[in-house]
Amino acid sequence: MRIDIISVVPDILKSPFEASILKRAIEKKHVEVHFHNLRDYSKNKYKQVDDYQYGGGAGMVLMPEPIDKCISQLKAERNYDEIVYLTPDGETLHQKMANSLSLKQNLILLCGHYKGIDQRVREMHITKEISIGDYVLSGGEVAAIVLSDAIIRLIPGVLNNETSALTDSFQDDLLAPPIYTRPAEYKGKKVPEVLMSGHFKKIEEWREAQALKITKQKRPDLIDEK
Amino acid sequence: MRIDIISVVPDILKSPFEASILKRAIEKKHVEVHFHNLRDYSKNKYKQVDDYQYGGGAGMVLMPEPIDKCISQLKAERNYDEIVYLTPDGETLHQKMANSLSLKQNLILLCGHYKGIDQRVREMHITKEISIGDYVLSGGEVAAIVLSDAIIRLIPGVLNNETSALTDSFQDDLLAPPIYTRPAEYKGKKVPEVLMSGHFKKIEEWREAQALKITKQKRPDLIDEK
Repeated sequence: MRIDIISVVPDILKSPFEASILKRAIEKKHVEVHFHNLRDYSKNKYKQVDDYQYGGGAGMVLMPEPIDKCISQLKAERNYDEIVYLTPDGETLHQKMANSLSLKQNLILLCGHYKGIDQRVREMHITKEISIGDYVLSGGEVAAIVLSDAIIRLIPGVLNNETSALTDSFQDDLLAPPIYTRPAEYKGKKVPEVLMSGHFKKIEEWREAQALKITKQKRPDLIDEK
Repeated sequence: MRIDIISVVPDILKSPFEASILKRAIEKKHVEVHFHNLRDYSKNKYKQVDDYQYGGGAGMVLMPEPIDKCISQLKAERNYDEIVYLTPDGETLHQKMANSLSLKQNLILLCGHYKGIDQRVREMHITKEISIGDYVLSGGEVAAIVLSDAIIRLIPGVLNNETSALTDSFQDDLLAPPIYTRPAEYKGKKVPEVLMSGHFKKIEEWREAQALKITKQKRPDLIDEK
């Protein structure tokens, strides 16, 4: 997979791709991630990429031309499965969307910044608008990190143990059951006995019952949707 | 405000706090952000902080003791308003939660990693469990970045123009209207005339109508909830 991330502040993006799972996924060539600085596509000598919004109001808007030039150049080099704009008014990201995007070959992620991007370039190039949740961030960069992480960890071979991703919360519309590790007793609190019983079937039953109980209690909407 | 972020891979966290709005918020002392490496609280000579899960299954679990020690030490130094655990089975983050957290003085954000943290230390210290959305990430670090960003930008003085945050999507339960900047015509596509009319009242009416139309079309649930 190849992910191209377009941003006016690509420096924000660095560290999450230079550590832990994403770093190893890149090193093992499961994914290529390229950052593109929008300012490199400004024809203005001050490298200007934003301007005031028509009609007035607070916040700058990213100009259409640098975005158009950057995306057009990438599209001339290869075919993209999706050109994603990260924006609070996009479709809300959920696990099944991440699953589906993890099967693609080439993705562009365009990060909004300031007040957002000019509507015309949005209509011109964007094939998918994604929001990572009902809250506002200082820029789409943080959302691009989240989306990349959610996708990349699902690429086969990225996690050491492939079953690990499949038992995550949401993959079966249930939250995960409680988990415990050593010591068996910590400050008077013990690990539930069933987990130390060695009875595989009983452990599975306990985990399923716990997952269902926790989901009903915390997120009944996940069960109602079924 | 002071935010303490506890992680087993604090390197992931760096760059978003070293650029753009978050960097300036830290420089202007609107917020202090401290990273704590969980491995510094391991008593093990190999700096071990994770172990296999009781009952078997893929994925390692963060041990209770290093987390307990780190949080206990911080709590001995000052009072915390909330000790937040970032986890997919927490309460889903939304703008009003970010608004409310932005008014706090001291927050601890604990990042899950691998399969998560031991349930006992969760019950011992955590006052609030937050999920940034219905998807799984390779660790809570990325979620802590999102939560920090959503909160910090709301602290008065962090954004240049305070009205800017108040006109964001979600602050009034409506998505934002389309925005435009120069040039007035780009590749044959024109900015809507009303925005160039100079009629403040007409522009406001157009924006409200657009916001309502876009919200009805993309996120009818936001309106139904009212």
